Amino acid sequence: MPGELFHPETDDVTLAQVLAALDDPMRLRIVKVLVHDPDATERTCTSFQLPVGKSTLTHHFRILREAGLIRQVDRGNSRKAQLRREDIDRRFPGLLSLILAEGTTPESGPAN
Amino acid sequence: MPGELFHPETDDVTLAQVLAALDDPMRLRIVKVLVHDPDATERTCTSFQLPVGKSTLTHHFRILREAGLIRQVDRGNSRKAQLRREDIDRRFPGLLSLILAEGTTPESGPAN
Repeated sequence: MPGELFHPETDDVTLAQVLAALDDPMRLRIVKVLVHDPDATERTCTSFQLPVGKSTLTHHFRILREAGLIRQVDRGNSRKAQLRREDIDRRFPGLLSLILAEGTTPESGPAN
Repeated sequence: MPGELFHPETDDVTLAQVLAALDDPMRLRIVKVLVHDPDATERTCTSFQLPVGKSTLTHHFRILREAGLIRQVDRGNSRKAQLRREDIDRRFPGLLSLILAEGTTPESGPAN
């Protein structure tokens, strides 16, 4: 039903865009979850169980998509999100490892 | 004259803090310049030749310092900034390489 969603070419994404996309606790949490998922996992927005409304969710996923971090595809009635793991690893080597290293306990604070 | 400046312990810095510090064109540019400098280079704030006033500069350097990215030291009458290269490399391996890879032409846009 909706038109084709915009997904930037990998080479067009800038570090500034990616930093801006990740500079938000909700969006960083979404990417942390996706990084920990097996490769090519597709998730609905609601599966992240974020404490925000639908329009806020849509906004956050749009920012992540436009920054080249996720791909969104329509599967029948539901829209699924997938990490653009390979693209990110090629464009920003090491970025996902940074998130993964911090992402073991996305919910809890440091153990000090 | 001023009291001791706060510098966080390397292990206390979070990725979210670092992302927030770098999610600003001016601050990203400061770090890009420092990443390209030889190790242990000390620079005055004005040496970055940023088109902003002193209080804005002070603000940006404070954010970078509190995020563990730079160290600021008073040398006589001037305050110098230095990249915490070793600390960052230990805490966030790969982060500086990402900035370095993008930082070859901090001034100019993409060549497309």
